[in-house]
Amino acid sequence: MDADATGLFAPDRVAVVGATEREGAIGRAIVTNLAEFDGDVVAVNPKRETVLGHDCYPDLQAVPGDVDLAVVVVPPPVAIETVRDAGEAGVRNVVVITAGFSETGGEGAQRERELAAVADDYGLNLVGPNSLGVLSTPTGMNATFGPSNALPGNLSFMSQSGAFITAVLDWANDQDIGFKDVVSLGNKAVLDETDFLEFWRDDPETNVVLGYLEGIEDGREFIDTAREVTQDTPAVVVKSGRTEAGAQAASSHTGTIAGSEAAYEAGFEQAGVVRAENVQELFDFARALDGLPMPDSESVAVVTNAGGPGVMATDAVGDSRLSMAAFEDETLDALQESMPDEANVYNPVDAIGDADLERFETAMDIVLADDNVGCAIVVSAPTAILDYEELAAAVADCQREYEKPVVTCLMGGERTRHAEAVLRDAGIPNYFDPARAVGSLDALAVQRAVEAREYEAPAEFDVDRERAGEILEDAAARDARRLGVEAMDLLDAYGIPTPDGDVVDDPREAERIAGTIDGDVVMKIVSPDILHKSDIGGVKVGVSTNDVRDAYEDLVARARNYQPDATILGVQVQELVDVDAGTETILGMNRDPQFGPLVLFGLGGIFVEVLEDTSVRVAPVSEREADEMVDELDSAPLLRGARGRPPADEDAVTDAVQRLSQLVTDFPAILELDVNPLLATPDGVQALDVRLTIDPGEL
Amino acid sequence: MDADATGLFAPDRVAVVGATEREGAIGRAIVTNLAEFDGDVVAVNPKRETVLGHDCYPDLQAVPGDVDLAVVVVPPPVAIETVRDAGEAGVRNVVVITAGFSETGGEGAQRERELAAVADDYGLNLVGPNSLGVLSTPTGMNATFGPSNALPGNLSFMSQSGAFITAVLDWANDQDIGFKDVVSLGNKAVLDETDFLEFWRDDPETNVVLGYLEGIEDGREFIDTAREVTQDTPAVVVKSGRTEAGAQAASSHTGTIAGSEAAYEAGFEQAGVVRAENVQELFDFARALDGLPMPDSESVAVVTNAGGPGVMATDAVGDSRLSMAAFEDETLDALQESMPDEANVYNPVDAIGDADLERFETAMDIVLADDNVGCAIVVSAPTAILDYEELAAAVADCQREYEKPVVTCLMGGERTRHAEAVLRDAGIPNYFDPARAVGSLDALAVQRAVEAREYEAPAEFDVDRERAGEILEDAAARDARRLGVEAMDLLDAYGIPTPDGDVVDDPREAERIAGTIDGDVVMKIVSPDILHKSDIGGVKVGVSTNDVRDAYEDLVARARNYQPDATILGVQVQELVDVDAGTETILGMNRDPQFGPLVLFGLGGIFVEVLEDTSVRVAPVSEREADEMVDELDSAPLLRGARGRPPADEDAVTDAVQRLSQLVTDFPAILELDVNPLLATPDGVQALDVRLTIDPGEL
Repeated sequence: MDADATGLFAPDRVAVVGATEREGAIGRAIVTNLAEFDGDVVAVNPKRETVLGHDCYPDLQAVPGDVDLAVVVVPPPVAIETVRDAGEAGVRNVVVITAGFSETGGEGAQRERELAAVADDYGLNLVGPNSLGVLSTPTGMNATFGPSNALPGNLSFMSQSGAFITAVLDWANDQDIGFKDVVSLGNKAVLDETDFLEFWRDDPETNVVLGYLEGIEDGREFIDTAREVTQDTPAVVVKSGRTEAGAQAASSHTGTIAGSEAAYEAGFEQAGVVRAENVQELFDFARALDGLPMPDSESVAVVTNAGGPGVMATDAVGDSRLSMAAFEDETLDALQESMPDEANVYNPVDAIGDADLERFETAMDIVLADDNVGCAIVVSAPTAILDYEELAAAVADCQREYEKPVVTCLMGGERTRHAEAVLRDAGIPNYFDPARAVGSLDALAVQRAVEAREYEAPAEFDVDRERAGEILEDAAARDARRLGVEAMDLLDAYGIPTPDGDVVDDPREAERIAGTIDGDVVMKIVSPDILHKSDIGGVKVGVSTNDVRDAYEDLVARARNYQPDATILGVQVQELVDVDAGTETILGMNRDPQFGPLVLFGLGGIFVEVLEDTSVRVAPVSEREADEMVDELDSAPLLRGARGRPPADEDAVTDAVQRLSQLVTDFPAILELDVNPLLATPDGVQALDVRLTIDPGEL
Repeated sequence: MDADATGLFAPDRVAVVGATEREGAIGRAIVTNLAEFDGDVVAVNPKRETVLGHDCYPDLQAVPGDVDLAVVVVPPPVAIETVRDAGEAGVRNVVVITAGFSETGGEGAQRERELAAVADDYGLNLVGPNSLGVLSTPTGMNATFGPSNALPGNLSFMSQSGAFITAVLDWANDQDIGFKDVVSLGNKAVLDETDFLEFWRDDPETNVVLGYLEGIEDGREFIDTAREVTQDTPAVVVKSGRTEAGAQAASSHTGTIAGSEAAYEAGFEQAGVVRAENVQELFDFARALDGLPMPDSESVAVVTNAGGPGVMATDAVGDSRLSMAAFEDETLDALQESMPDEANVYNPVDAIGDADLERFETAMDIVLADDNVGCAIVVSAPTAILDYEELAAAVADCQREYEKPVVTCLMGGERTRHAEAVLRDAGIPNYFDPARAVGSLDALAVQRAVEAREYEAPAEFDVDRERAGEILEDAAARDARRLGVEAMDLLDAYGIPTPDGDVVDDPREAERIAGTIDGDVVMKIVSPDILHKSDIGGVKVGVSTNDVRDAYEDLVARARNYQPDATILGVQVQELVDVDAGTETILGMNRDPQFGPLVLFGLGGIFVEVLEDTSVRVAPVSEREADEMVDELDSAPLLRGARGRPPADEDAVTDAVQRLSQLVTDFPAILELDVNPLLATPDGVQALDVRLTIDPGEL
């Protein structure tokens, strides 16, 4: 989006191209929805002089004066011409409502490419096509054809589903939830989620960005932008099509070819995005992030007049990232002094059923003053002596005074209405279910951790990039796509340790190499055509230098015997490594269509294949991220010496992860790569085997 | 509860003992709440002649005619006398509202025991003490002191928190959710959750039992009762105090000493109880189970006018036990014929944004007629041409016609009100969030599986119980609490295979035993005082028969040298077992205060200790349950031959699980027991080591 993009949400003048008075037409609905717009509205329609009282012109170029935003509702072929007109007429922002583009398949996709090309020629900020439109509450501009307008607020919302916007607005109006900007992204021919994220970063009226996304256009760009944005402005996203069935459905909905769920999970994590699993979480999290102050810690105090619901709140804290605050002695003393004997002064504080407003206030005051308390939940069952509206006002006061986030469960039905309005004005969400109240504090904890992050540039290791390039070029020259141990040097060039040895195509050379290695060696036939070397006797373990030449001839003979036309690249002569001295891990990589190279790490064998205990990040991977990749494995204790195992040199592990990340980032020609096993010992790591697939076209 | 317990919820006559006109008193609140009761209300209070218009008597015995239910609100010491009076006066049912019993600790606990003893003397059905009361809508009896009454309905609700009842009633009234009976369990001195579960089993007006529980009094009894109940009547339970912090809070709330979460998880599973994680789920699940017909399968059809929300629903299905239905060819043909070209006829069916009522009806008709479809979700965004109230009526008709459960997400705010009322009348829940709609269908799937269960009696193996008893008696006789390999015969007596060999206390005997064993043997020192035998050289592997006597002397000498005063029971001479021929598993047991013996199974070593991949069941364990214990392990594929491992004889594994279950059920003196490892090979299992703790007092 260019610098003029403010014209998209805050234009002075909007032109509706395809405006009409025909009942039921989208061109009428948009003009009607623009009735409350502060700015000027003009219509474009060659067949009319006015539309619903607005001046009408035959085309955009005929409109006198500047137009900041053109909303296009003409049929698909005409839409492209209209966008060109807009460019010619100096209009900077265009929303294409018209459907019938890539979502309809082949021909439509071609039409969409043309549309994007025109927008590109003129440098237009183009939303859509196949969009419900855009709206922005400060100017009262509702340039959508949906049935509802938005209330004013500080949430800005982008959605890949127009229908979801209509549903959300109707619901949000009922819940008194307001928005700053809302945009229906449509097919994202030009502007996508990353553009809007960037735009709202600089928007002082946007407190929280919300997104409903079915896919991300450019994963790496999204991560880089979102990282900056989310340091100040929380972004909460529902990514639809998470499951296999969902992804299939999403693909037939918007034609989105989504990358793997693992990629999205890693990508959102790395981007600092707060991920919501469902619609309820999307808005619970957004409201909490919009309305509540940030806590200083994850320690929660619970104050209640009801034991059972207090226990439920405590359970919910136990399920979350939060923990129950341990009160300072003074807090306990003060509570003891002011609460009745039957009360429980330990957290959760149970002020018992006859607690009146004053007792609640006293308890809240005492616990919120405690430095060990980062945030609080006030849980109440309805009683005869407690007025919820008064309690709500007291909670709001407390939150203001202590600047700590407080959420409430004033439980009940009708009697909570007025209290909820008081709480809402103070930005405090009230839920019947303590688990939801805790969930909203949990979202603050996630955002707090994001804001505390210090993003470091990925390390740039001193590597032999030239040599790595040559190895890949050589492979490409002999038309090889799948490489094995003959490519161990690639790892070596990037500083990932490999055992001593080499691949040779001559028995004397094999003997010479063996002579440079201490002790006996391992010898393996190297052939892209022989995948299971062991099965054909293609591996010899513990060969002494004297026997190396014979062993060489024997390995080649076996391979020829097994498959006479196999390409034999030679024999690998390698130092004999004691695998029992360490833990076998896997370091892998593949390419995601949206996010690019994904790096995977896990313990080998059953941990990857049976237990699926792996961690994934989008490359390039920073040191912090590499550390996290190890930390988040369930099997991490095994790397760290659990049950008497040799503890691995973890720095060497994370170093290898980062070096691999650098390698696959440097060479887009590497499509897939697996180091399996990467042996992790107390003294470092060693890559014992490697397989990779390359695309010579990318070299 | 005895046969007269109907008098608890449907009495002809209620006496309120401690009735008063004093404002703010509980004794007044109860009399006031009884205003709408169909039956007769009398007051008991020696100081008054009438209370709020009801006749008042000095004590229960003075009341002329029968009293079916006495509600007691007098101070704690008087309460015990009142309950005795009730017994003397022939009152069968008593609700003790009075607090100040076990929830206050020592003295109160003693008072509660007295109260229970009195109730026991007279065989009374006693609710409480420390109860909010009971209510039942068919008779309009509200014998609680809460601020709200319940709407009529078919949910029966028991709660260990009175405050939660007041909160739920207030909320439920607002949501139009009705109840049959509600009981505040209080301290459960006499009647507990199992009694009410049993009572409601036979109540035709109770469709679903709901429970808020902080603990269960007698786990095994609960399981046995709940199994019968839940074959017809679903029971949905929130167990509070799930987390460590929550359990601590629960303990200070009601004095409940809860068993382990693992025990509750296993117990609820075995009982057929639908467990809700939080309040929202409790009522979402209950409403679905109350209002919707049972599906024939878990295949879901989604019909929508909105692509995005359709994808969300599909994701939620992917997250659940349910699956997306694959339509029959005729269904696809019929949809293709009747839907516009742009529609998606594959599941989720997207009838697109301009779908009117008729198109929705057509789509619903076609998919519900498909035998592959077990249930359906109708998802709609608001549009100009769709009236939600009409759509709701059509959904209700469809559900009636096809007798398949249908839930809805008619998304929006105000505009959903009337539609929701229509849907509610048809028992159909409507949610904004597709995930919640799917969650309610998921609850039906859980209940469907429960109802399909055939509970089998645990197998009774032909074991040598007498010999096992003798082994335990012998240990007790020598004052042993912790036993090791010297107790291998215990396993043998119950048919759990052990290697050949024995524990002997004489070198010649050792030699003789070794002579009966093929090949070399393993010898281990046997001493309760030496835990880590290997560390002191107390284990010899691969001893030939000739060397056995020397080895014996050497082992004893080492033990003496290590700890001169150690009790040495002898030396174990055992067949040398090749552990690489199988998979090491753990078969364990401990006793839970509520549920009794819990049997645990898992793969050995890291799987138990690092990955905590274990399964637990309350003993006695049936064959089906033993099978499930293996199935639910993440590491189960390893037992089944993953990655070239020897596949275990799974029948032998589940046989050992059931035999251990029988052993620990037969002998309450066994407090803890671990068979570690139980080696599982293709030819069967072998217990290689055992440790147990016994309580001689239980013998």
